Amino acid sequence: MVSSPVDEVPFRGDDVIRDYIAKFSNWGRWGAEDQLGALNHVGPEQVTAAAALVRQGKVISMGLPLDLDGPQSGGFRANPLNMMTATGTDYLAGKQDPLPGGFGPSKGFGFSDDVLVTPNQSGSQWDGLAHIFWKGQMYNGFDAGNVTAKGAATCGIEVARSKFVMRGVLLDVARHKGVDCLEPGYAITVEDLDATAAAEGVEIRTGDALIVRTGMTETRRGNWGDYNGGPAPGLSLHTAPWLYEHDVAAIATDTWGCEVRPNEVDLFQPLHVVALVHMGIPFGEIWDLQAIGEDCAADGVHEFLLSAAPLPITGAAGSPMNAIAVK
Amino acid sequence: MVSSPVDEVPFRGDDVIRDYIAKFSNWGRWGAEDQLGALNHVGPEQVTAAAALVRQGKVISMGLPLDLDGPQSGGFRANPLNMMTATGTDYLAGKQDPLPGGFGPSKGFGFSDDVLVTPNQSGSQWDGLAHIFWKGQMYNGFDAGNVTAKGAATCGIEVARSKFVMRGVLLDVARHKGVDCLEPGYAITVEDLDATAAAEGVEIRTGDALIVRTGMTETRRGNWGDYNGGPAPGLSLHTAPWLYEHDVAAIATDTWGCEVRPNEVDLFQPLHVVALVHMGIPFGEIWDLQAIGEDCAADGVHEFLLSAAPLPITGAAGSPMNAIAVK
Amino acid sequence: MVSSPVDEVPFRGDDVIRDYIAKFSNWGRWGAEDQLGALNHVGPEQVTAAAALVRQGKVISMGLPLDLDGPQSGGFRANPLNMMTATGTDYLAGKQDPLPGGFGPSKGFGFSDDVLVTPNQSGSQWDGLAHIFWKGQMYNGFDAGNVTAKGAATCGIEVARSKFVMRGVLLDVARHKGVDCLEPGYAITVEDLDATAAAEGVEIRTGDALIVRTGMTETRRGNWGDYNGGPAPGLSLHTAPWLYEHDVAAIATDTWGCEVRPNEVDLFQPLHVVALVHMGIPFGEIWDLQAIGEDCAADGVHEFLLSAAPLPITGAAGSPMNAIAVK
Amino acid sequence: MVSSPVDEVPFRGDDVIRDYIAKFSNWGRWGAEDQLGALNHVGPEQVTAAAALVRQGKVISMGLPLDLDGPQSGGFRANPLNMMTATGTDYLAGKQDPLPGGFGPSKGFGFSDDVLVTPNQSGSQWDGLAHIFWKGQMYNGFDAGNVTAKGAATCGIEVARSKFVMRGVLLDVARHKGVDCLEPGYAITVEDLDATAAAEGVEIRTGDALIVRTGMTETRRGNWGDYNGGPAPGLSLHTAPWLYEHDVAAIATDTWGCEVRPNEVDLFQPLHVVALVHMGIPFGEIWDLQAIGEDCAADGVHEFLLSAAPLPITGAAGSPMNAIAVK
Repeated sequence: MVSSPVDEVPFRGDDVIRDYIAKFSNWGRWGAEDQLGALNHVGPEQVTAAAALVRQGKVISMGLPLDLDGPQSGGFRANPLNMMTATGTDYLAGKQDPLPGGFGPSKGFGFSDDVLVTPNQSGSQWDGLAHIFWKGQMYNGFDAGNVTAKGAATCGIEVARSKFVMRGVLLDVARHKGVDCLEPGYAITVEDLDATAAAEGVEIRTGDALIVRTGMTETRRGNWGDYNGGPAPGLSLHTAPWLYEHDVAAIATDTWGCEVRPNEVDLFQPLHVVALVHMGIPFGEIWDLQAIGEDCAADGVHEFLLSAAPLPITGAAGSPMNAIAVK
Repeated sequence: MVSSPVDEVPFRGDDVIRDYIAKFSNWGRWGAEDQLGALNHVGPEQVTAAAALVRQGKVISMGLPLDLDGPQSGGFRANPLNMMTATGTDYLAGKQDPLPGGFGPSKGFGFSDDVLVTPNQSGSQWDGLAHIFWKGQMYNGFDAGNVTAKGAATCGIEVARSKFVMRGVLLDVARHKGVDCLEPGYAITVEDLDATAAAEGVEIRTGDALIVRTGMTETRRGNWGDYNGGPAPGLSLHTAPWLYEHDVAAIATDTWGCEVRPNEVDLFQPLHVVALVHMGIPFGEIWDLQAIGEDCAADGVHEFLLSAAPLPITGAAGSPMNAIAVK
Repeated sequence: MVSSPVDEVPFRGDDVIRDYIAKFSNWGRWGAEDQLGALNHVGPEQVTAAAALVRQGKVISMGLPLDLDGPQSGGFRANPLNMMTATGTDYLAGKQDPLPGGFGPSKGFGFSDDVLVTPNQSGSQWDGLAHIFWKGQMYNGFDAGNVTAKGAATCGIEVARSKFVMRGVLLDVARHKGVDCLEPGYAITVEDLDATAAAEGVEIRTGDALIVRTGMTETRRGNWGDYNGGPAPGLSLHTAPWLYEHDVAAIATDTWGCEVRPNEVDLFQPLHVVALVHMGIPFGEIWDLQAIGEDCAADGVHEFLLSAAPLPITGAAGSPMNAIAVK
Repeated sequence: MVSSPVDEVPFRGDDVIRDYIAKFSNWGRWGAEDQLGALNHVGPEQVTAAAALVRQGKVISMGLPLDLDGPQSGGFRANPLNMMTATGTDYLAGKQDPLPGGFGPSKGFGFSDDVLVTPNQSGSQWDGLAHIFWKGQMYNGFDAGNVTAKGAATCGIEVARSKFVMRGVLLDVARHKGVDCLEPGYAITVEDLDATAAAEGVEIRTGDALIVRTGMTETRRGNWGDYNGGPAPGLSLHTAPWLYEHDVAAIATDTWGCEVRPNEVDLFQPLHVVALVHMGIPFGEIWDLQAIGEDCAADGVHEFLLSAAPLPITGAAGSPMNAIAVK
């Protein structure tokens, strides 16, 4: 049996969730029709300031390769499958179809082509604001029923197609703690965030994307085990006040779900409920932070221009994307 | 019957193609193993200079929505299809599956999820350097046979996962000529490019992405007709020397194939052969340049930071992406 | 705006629909839990009798090829796309991946492999009993809400995985009337059915699949136009009483929707409402009746063993299949 | 490195393979253009005789459900994924799209719709004759290069769209040996086949489909482990002469690859090489033989009309299908 979204089922931690929602919700903050949530923290001033961080001309991808070697263990979120509908081997063998449109012999011209089948939440991605519901609603009180088989009529990822350019700050908690990877189940605390930021010499400012490195993607690479859906280090539910106070625009980690698993209260993904649904913060998941972590450790610069626009998939709950740090 | 890629089939314009290839090929220019082509024109200096163009904090998407209303007329390149594997209506109806992992009742938590099926060349995209072959080879002389059913072993789009951050220049040829849309079949000349640049007060520099607006995507929107594969305005084959001389890193237009159709010589997509295969210039196609065109006309600024990283799809011939202009 | 399924919107023909439902519904006839509907008319006796029709040893497919040349004009029902994930050209080029499992060199062994992406309703298919709803319910009063993003919990096509072996009777109405194809918009009447059956020397018996040839699939082949979704000849709504009285188990035609379009009353697909939802008759659509039509005309035998099991796709609304006539 | 298909790599068992091919190949037997292989053993006489076996009116599916609970462990052969593009929950919530074509309010009409994504070799299936190559060729000497990214130009599964109606004989080796499931690695011998047939009172005749039950699908159901691709009981390579002598038209088992794994010689799937490639026998794999096994044990009748037509997927290497036994 499944429960109705409006059932009031008491659970351990219910009071904390209620309290955080009461104090930190952004519903209505940017108007009743707002679908951008915490991305509203990023205005022209923030974009310009972020671009001003580019001093070395480095460009670093934080996107995990999209292929069958990814972390998905099957089920409805399979790994991305890219299929070739035209190949060079066919062409070389003289087997590629004649060109369309009466072009006659190709005279040497050939091509390849492909089709991608991917769950939007399978690789490095944004969870959009239509991805999670709480008690019948998504961010800003929009009816969860706006997400039908035709997609999300509100808060679909495409509404943010001209967003996700902002200052990114890498808090490399794993490196700060001197470990390759935080332990699965380790809840990253406010103290961890502050101590890492202090050690890195950065501060979190309005409109930042907070990128937290746990080391998990890189230590599990190629031997994923229960990476996807299993125990993981991640943000504590109790970082919610800190995220609110710092006017964070987006968060991302190198784990499947951003927040610590198992969860700290008896609710599935409570930080999603508080921060994504109520603060309107998009969650970046399964990012590959190895290269950016090494680079920041090497040059001592943990802030950068983040460019991480989603694909403008109409009505999508999320989007695969290739987040780029520019330093 | 199909011809072998090594057949020497004489055709009208063969001499031009041979001449341009002889003069403007970048094969070997950045080493025998190079897979990045003209993107090598973009070094740290270019990235830093591009970021310095950000003064107003504007972020403008040039990505066409990925959905069934796109321009694809069927066949092996269908429009993108995003399918919901979890919906809000199910959740509200109490029909969403119980949470995994022994979580029991969801207590109010719900989610949506989706799967995208899309030809990589269906919406706004990059043609990667494994997409086109000439006489058995792709860029830099790599064997076309490196592109198998498993994907491209060389020049797959993922090799450029940390590229495509550069200066973008919009040459709004349609607006410069005072038309909503250039006529299908109109070949944009070097003179057009120079005159438009002059009128806009911009010059093309090493490592720029040249973005040419014809007006086609926006004038056909919603009534695509033969947009995809049919006659189109576009770059003349004879812009090839100009592209080479200006050290252009990438080109993009708001048409399906960047170059004018019908083609000016009796070869299918000859500019692809010269510029993509031999200069190593990636082609951005089916971009939506309406908003950027209007914005540049309004503020008189036609240069910007372009951020247009592809999805890191291993071995892909191209990638859908959401090109972003930051001004 | 969309209307609620329980809205009572008066329309032209409402009285007829109500009357037919009142008289001919099979809800409850085979128990409150029945999900097979009119397929219950096919018992062991009918199966055995159908097999006894096999006298010549002929096997004739009525399945349209599943490929990109099908009749789908795009949108969410694209044509079937079969993509090769391993090819002979790769293998011949020595480019096929080494075998898995430590087999080392393949020594001459190669393979091809493929992935099919197809709307279940795109080619020759069965509409299952979860495909259509009326006023909130599917066949036998099951809640339409049983069909979620996870599929149909009731009346999914897989419940009939051991069904669809029965007597098939081809009523070749087009040939009987001496035309290649009935006119789009032509409603096939009870009189047409009776006259065709009489001319063919067949009678319809309990548990038969009624296969009605209009000539449309074959006359539109390769030049589909508005075949899919456009005007079509087909069964009149007013054949409903006849279908009920003859205990028909299934119907199929060589058109996209079995019933005449435009519809005879101001309701979309009213025969689906009466016959599929209320009688529980599965509808076979987009069948290719050219070969069976020619064969029956040649040998004068219009009855056969029909074998047309669906794929056992769990929870599917329908299934592509390859209906086979054995004579 | 991969080897060329024409490399002559000596291996243990090479002599046996050469010998079997020399003695038992059917290449040319039915003409140089034949693409049907051993299905040619099934003529009108065999079809009629098979239909005459239907005496009880029983219809039994041997198709495994096509869903995410199947045996595929990931990689390029994922489990079938059926996605709903229209649901009853949407409809009930008044969220289903208005009907097309100017129909206005639906007045109570609703529907569900779905899209299937499935590797053709993921569930119960036929391996067609384009699926396996040996030394550059498929069945009847056709060039392996006929299988391109566009599909198989020869021996695609659609050539057999009007085939696969024949006598089926279940040899329930597991039950005959008194075990739930034969041990993985157990090679079923000619003696096993003969003894089982004798115990069951059946003989194999020209044009039969030989269906061999090992018990594996049903004992692994829901807990598949390495079912797919791992060790398995199956036909010995040395049943090849027996298959040839008995003019078997098709074989099928309840394992992933029909033949015993690990293989008996140092070649991957040697029975495929001998029997599929050279005799032209299609292989049915991953069938679900639990119900038919129980039924045959109960009534003592191990022969039946088999109806197992593939989907007519143009150029496919194989096809999912729902094999039906009619008794």
